[in-house]
Amino acid sequence: MIVTDSLLTSFLKTRSDTEEICAPLETEDYVIQPIVDVSPPKWHLGHTTWFFEEFILSKYDTNYKRFHPEYAYVFNSYYESVGKRVIRTNRGNLSRPTVSQVYQYRDYVTSHLQAFLEENFDEKINELVEIGIHHEKQHQELLLTDIKFILGNNPLFPKYNETFTENPESNQSNQYVTIQEGIYEIGYQGNDFCYDNELGVHRVLLEEYAICNELVSNKEYLDFINDGGYNDSLLWHAEAWDWIKNDNIQAPLYWHLIDGQYYQYTLQGLKALKLNTSVTHISYYEAFAFAQWKGQRLPTEFEWEVAQHQFKWGSRWEWTESAYLPYPNYKKAPGALGEYNGKFMVNQKVLRGGSVATSQDHTRSTYRNFFHPNLRWQFTGLRLVKNI
Amino acid sequence: MIVTDSLLTSFLKTRSDTEEICAPLETEDYVIQPIVDVSPPKWHLGHTTWFFEEFILSKYDTNYKRFHPEYAYVFNSYYESVGKRVIRTNRGNLSRPTVSQVYQYRDYVTSHLQAFLEENFDEKINELVEIGIHHEKQHQELLLTDIKFILGNNPLFPKYNETFTENPESNQSNQYVTIQEGIYEIGYQGNDFCYDNELGVHRVLLEEYAICNELVSNKEYLDFINDGGYNDSLLWHAEAWDWIKNDNIQAPLYWHLIDGQYYQYTLQGLKALKLNTSVTHISYYEAFAFAQWKGQRLPTEFEWEVAQHQFKWGSRWEWTESAYLPYPNYKKAPGALGEYNGKFMVNQKVLRGGSVATSQDHTRSTYRNFFHPNLRWQFTGLRLVKNI
Amino acid sequence: MIVTDSLLTSFLKTRSDTEEICAPLETEDYVIQPIVDVSPPKWHLGHTTWFFEEFILSKYDTNYKRFHPEYAYVFNSYYESVGKRVIRTNRGNLSRPTVSQVYQYRDYVTSHLQAFLEENFDEKINELVEIGIHHEKQHQELLLTDIKFILGNNPLFPKYNETFTENPESNQSNQYVTIQEGIYEIGYQGNDFCYDNELGVHRVLLEEYAICNELVSNKEYLDFINDGGYNDSLLWHAEAWDWIKNDNIQAPLYWHLIDGQYYQYTLQGLKALKLNTSVTHISYYEAFAFAQWKGQRLPTEFEWEVAQHQFKWGSRWEWTESAYLPYPNYKKAPGALGEYNGKFMVNQKVLRGGSVATSQDHTRSTYRNFFHPNLRWQFTGLRLVKNI
Amino acid sequence: MIVTDSLLTSFLKTRSDTEEICAPLETEDYVIQPIVDVSPPKWHLGHTTWFFEEFILSKYDTNYKRFHPEYAYVFNSYYESVGKRVIRTNRGNLSRPTVSQVYQYRDYVTSHLQAFLEENFDEKINELVEIGIHHEKQHQELLLTDIKFILGNNPLFPKYNETFTENPESNQSNQYVTIQEGIYEIGYQGNDFCYDNELGVHRVLLEEYAICNELVSNKEYLDFINDGGYNDSLLWHAEAWDWIKNDNIQAPLYWHLIDGQYYQYTLQGLKALKLNTSVTHISYYEAFAFAQWKGQRLPTEFEWEVAQHQFKWGSRWEWTESAYLPYPNYKKAPGALGEYNGKFMVNQKVLRGGSVATSQDHTRSTYRNFFHPNLRWQFTGLRLVKNI
Repeated sequence: MIVTDSLLTSFLKTRSDTEEICAPLETEDYVIQPIVDVSPPKWHLGHTTWFFEEFILSKYDTNYKRFHPEYAYVFNSYYESVGKRVIRTNRGNLSRPTVSQVYQYRDYVTSHLQAFLEENFDEKINELVEIGIHHEKQHQELLLTDIKFILGNNPLFPKYNETFTENPESNQSNQYVTIQEGIYEIGYQGNDFCYDNELGVHRVLLEEYAICNELVSNKEYLDFINDGGYNDSLLWHAEAWDWIKNDNIQAPLYWHLIDGQYYQYTLQGLKALKLNTSVTHISYYEAFAFAQWKGQRLPTEFEWEVAQHQFKWGSRWEWTESAYLPYPNYKKAPGALGEYNGKFMVNQKVLRGGSVATSQDHTRSTYRNFFHPNLRWQFTGLRLVKNI
Repeated sequence: MIVTDSLLTSFLKTRSDTEEICAPLETEDYVIQPIVDVSPPKWHLGHTTWFFEEFILSKYDTNYKRFHPEYAYVFNSYYESVGKRVIRTNRGNLSRPTVSQVYQYRDYVTSHLQAFLEENFDEKINELVEIGIHHEKQHQELLLTDIKFILGNNPLFPKYNETFTENPESNQSNQYVTIQEGIYEIGYQGNDFCYDNELGVHRVLLEEYAICNELVSNKEYLDFINDGGYNDSLLWHAEAWDWIKNDNIQAPLYWHLIDGQYYQYTLQGLKALKLNTSVTHISYYEAFAFAQWKGQRLPTEFEWEVAQHQFKWGSRWEWTESAYLPYPNYKKAPGALGEYNGKFMVNQKVLRGGSVATSQDHTRSTYRNFFHPNLRWQFTGLRLVKNI
Repeated sequence: MIVTDSLLTSFLKTRSDTEEICAPLETEDYVIQPIVDVSPPKWHLGHTTWFFEEFILSKYDTNYKRFHPEYAYVFNSYYESVGKRVIRTNRGNLSRPTVSQVYQYRDYVTSHLQAFLEENFDEKINELVEIGIHHEKQHQELLLTDIKFILGNNPLFPKYNETFTENPESNQSNQYVTIQEGIYEIGYQGNDFCYDNELGVHRVLLEEYAICNELVSNKEYLDFINDGGYNDSLLWHAEAWDWIKNDNIQAPLYWHLIDGQYYQYTLQGLKALKLNTSVTHISYYEAFAFAQWKGQRLPTEFEWEVAQHQFKWGSRWEWTESAYLPYPNYKKAPGALGEYNGKFMVNQKVLRGGSVATSQDHTRSTYRNFFHPNLRWQFTGLRLVKNI
Repeated sequence: MIVTDSLLTSFLKTRSDTEEICAPLETEDYVIQPIVDVSPPKWHLGHTTWFFEEFILSKYDTNYKRFHPEYAYVFNSYYESVGKRVIRTNRGNLSRPTVSQVYQYRDYVTSHLQAFLEENFDEKINELVEIGIHHEKQHQELLLTDIKFILGNNPLFPKYNETFTENPESNQSNQYVTIQEGIYEIGYQGNDFCYDNELGVHRVLLEEYAICNELVSNKEYLDFINDGGYNDSLLWHAEAWDWIKNDNIQAPLYWHLIDGQYYQYTLQGLKALKLNTSVTHISYYEAFAFAQWKGQRLPTEFEWEVAQHQFKWGSRWEWTESAYLPYPNYKKAPGALGEYNGKFMVNQKVLRGGSVATSQDHTRSTYRNFFHPNLRWQFTGLRLVKNI
């Protein structure tokens, strides 16, 4: 049973955390969409709010009056079954509602939902609120990486703030931990919140493997570049090779070669490349090519989940070799909420772990993130595995 | 000889007029670029400023220090010979510099140029300032029409203000004025400013024609729509037909058919269509198809220039049948300023007249505006001609 | 050890089978490439020949003189490491070499390789010949389906011949076979030829499931259409939904709705839709949506492989839910031949079984075919699985 | 009055000339469409035949039975008002009807029309036949240049034949002929056939100019290249500059730089560049940039028409500065034949003269050809004009 008090605390905390992430922004930063994958921050602020309005207040609070009749159209993301929506590529074409109006919308929905929850106890509604909280936490992560792209793609390289540490130092004493052949259970078994894609606990048989306790570092990745990694077609998938040729990819995202020296745009601005930290902002394609070059491979998501208590994780989303597929007993939720995960289960790769952008308590060892194999604007990284 | 005093007055007036146009905007409205042809307002503010900095201050004021080393890159528009530049499609991807910084940039350049002009008299520099003033006046027009697009393309249809009248009433008593066959002089012959594309006065031989004293009205255009004008391929150019099919064009830009009634987005918001006003926001393709349907034709730019004292003009840019080509003795300016007009003299049609968005004193009877034949976001209109 | 005699027989048989497939064609049919996935038949004829020339004759037969110095450029498919090549989208832009010259090229290479094999026994070379034979058999399948597309995409609907039966009747008494939970071995364990992607025999743990002994029929698929299957977004992946909307997909490929009746283009021409035969020419997206509609699912490739001796298969390639990934111990061949399979192991789905277009003896129960999830020009089909 | 006898002779001669042009082709050459502007030769053969069938036989010969009910769909080019058609980009996707069937179609229509004309005298029909003859002559020119592209775009560089001379030697003693200021008559005034776009004889006033008696030679054009002409943005239109950058244009079409030496693909195969012949296969953009570089300009079509008796012309279509626009009194034909010229009068430039590919007696001094400014596959050339 979900206790309302702590739920309410969590709800209010999540709402204010989202706003905290945006605190360093100028109004202009909230508006733009430099690539289709990056949404304007004000869209995230509005969309996470609309989620509570659409799926809870407008359905269960009989006195509730929508803040604005057109906002459902503006802030719906991809729920085909809920109604028409601004198509994704157009999110950056909307100067209105203004940032200030979006914050008013947030306050309106937050306070109405708070009042509603304080007066109505209902297990079903609490579950929906919990989904909404986790939904918003997911968007917090996107919000920060979208902000990084918005700023890092600007020729003036403005900094986000002076304090956000995205590249912790690392000792980099690579060690391989051996996991014995065996049958292992996969999937979420706790009593707290998890997504439908983690459910359907099931067993997998794994053969013996050795997994590195450290992520691949910038230093190692630089060796790959200097060894001509981006010019050897045999290391790459066919689609990856087309991608690096068409988009002229020569290094991770945010790396800039200036006068023979690599720099890296970070949330603290443009900095000289730090070698003893884990590489980030690489695509699956690059992670795979690097592993090929090393004569090793990426873990499957099952190998990762089984081994994860043997190493530190959480600063980089780690690409796995696994395609994003339903677990054997996967059941999607009925109705619009069923669109949450299932409909993306094709053409994407699983990432495990979480990153410096992940909201506190949001990730867990069974959490399955997923992206198309060419995307790089998340804090992605790479861990190697050897067969034995 | 250009007198510095009145030049300075004109300069300062132009600078403040530009800012006046932006006064009703929210910060967010300054930032976006919903289609490639529409630039963000803050880009116009910066670009017109950069023009003075690049072509005058940085060249002639030896004490001048650029406001920011990267702004030349951000605010150059298309001067290939001046250096690299943000490509046009990316103008809406820049949240920085902020609107406030752009205004600081404006103030900085305005006051430096003012101080410089007050202390230095130089015919050449005054000429450049005059070009800069007219350049900025051209952008004022684009600024207003870009703002209209930014707001009118938004599903919330926000208004610009309560007062801007873009659709004056008209009596619509169409009369055709006959112009006799003869040899006429074309081009600018005054002593004030004009663009290089108006120069090279020359004679043309025109046969007799009759030109309407009124622009085509919304009412007449509605008749064309209701008669199936958009469905009769024989009225359209081949490229126009592809365009209306691909983009699903059924009416002028900003017309919305709601419950069987046409509405028109205006700077005062969405309004019921006003019949007795001149049609606007049509492409050359639509103007041509309408004239075909009427069994008449568009004037050439020469016919327009010769007849223009016979009718009122200035509320709509009027499409002509003329392609935008150099006059027989056209000479483009040397260096970067030579890129101003000449390099666009292909694949565009000439418009004559000016519009409700045109800055005071900016247009004249010899002024040649030009756009691609499919573009509609200017206040374009249409006047008919009959052969006799 | 590969015995040369039977290898030679197999080689010559394969070469002549390829030509047999093309026997009904007009010269013009050999040349065109209506979509990027479909190669011109003469390209298949040349490419399979080039494979033997490039990887065997030019490397091991010291007396061999290439038939034409430019053919390697023309007929290389995707071997990035072998040299430059005509890019795939341009295959249909080449009228030369002529069909007759390509047949001469075939004869030249066939006879040279025959002579070489008769005089030289070498295990390594025999292995390469065997790969070349299987490579050509793979292309036989593509050849027939590409021919079907070339003819079936033509508004005249020419027939291939009078006899090719692609739609055998079926009794359609659907029965579900239950497979017990257990650990099963996957991968090729025989001594004959197989591809590298089938190797690395390994065990998987499967939970209990029930698999249908019949493929889904046209009749069942028609029910799905008539029930609005193509209009219910909740049945489809997000990318699938975009695909059916953008490409206006309403039925399997080659189905034509004429006067309210469905027809189906077949190699024998346009025919009324046969209901009691298995549906074909559907994408993975459609297979998945159909299964969703039924409340069932597709098998994984492992479930299929384990169960396959329980039902008849071989007339339709069957879509599985499995992404095309390397087996745990996958090792790709060194050098150019390593480009054969491994580099395609992303963004594709596995198909199992083989089809009416598959060359005799070419498929087997461990064979892994793979295509992008939107492709339909193969004889694809669909078998359902239920969890228990 | 059109005399039937000579008309019939002309008709039969035109029909056989078309087939003569195709005589050197292989069947495969008839089928492909390497770029959208180039149609498959068999399409030209069928389309010119369909023109006679559609506009004459099916309308006026009451006994006529169409050769095939679907050929109107296959061979209609752009007549929107006549019915649906294979869209232009798909012409190369049709292997059927075969070349042999198309020749049968030709014979069928030729003999039916011959029989019909022999038995029926009708002024109106004779006019239509005359249009059909000229229509076919126009296609003869396209046929040859399309064939050149089909062969010249092939990496094997097959020759068309051994005799076609496309690059006659030239003395290249450039002289400028002065034309006095005056009023000149423009347009066709004879009694033979001409197109509607040449009619509406009218007067133009020309100022004095000097026009070169020779076309620009390969040698002169090579100087332009060697002087960095393709790298100086100030010489080019803005759209031209984008075009040469996007398509990596560095020289005329069919020029190949091999080991530091320029070669030129011709209908006789790949040959060393001949310097003392006129440059060809250049776009309007290149012609314009060359003239800018020379400090001269292109003639207008009126200047060309007035001066044309002063120099030799006919080997190269000559780009003019004129946009393709209707003459002042232009009237397009009613119905489908009105689609012949008028609907292309936007975004194209006029060419004058004719070329080595032009059918005998097809061009004349008033003939107006037109192409988009970036196209190069015709035998285009360039003549310079100086203001005085």
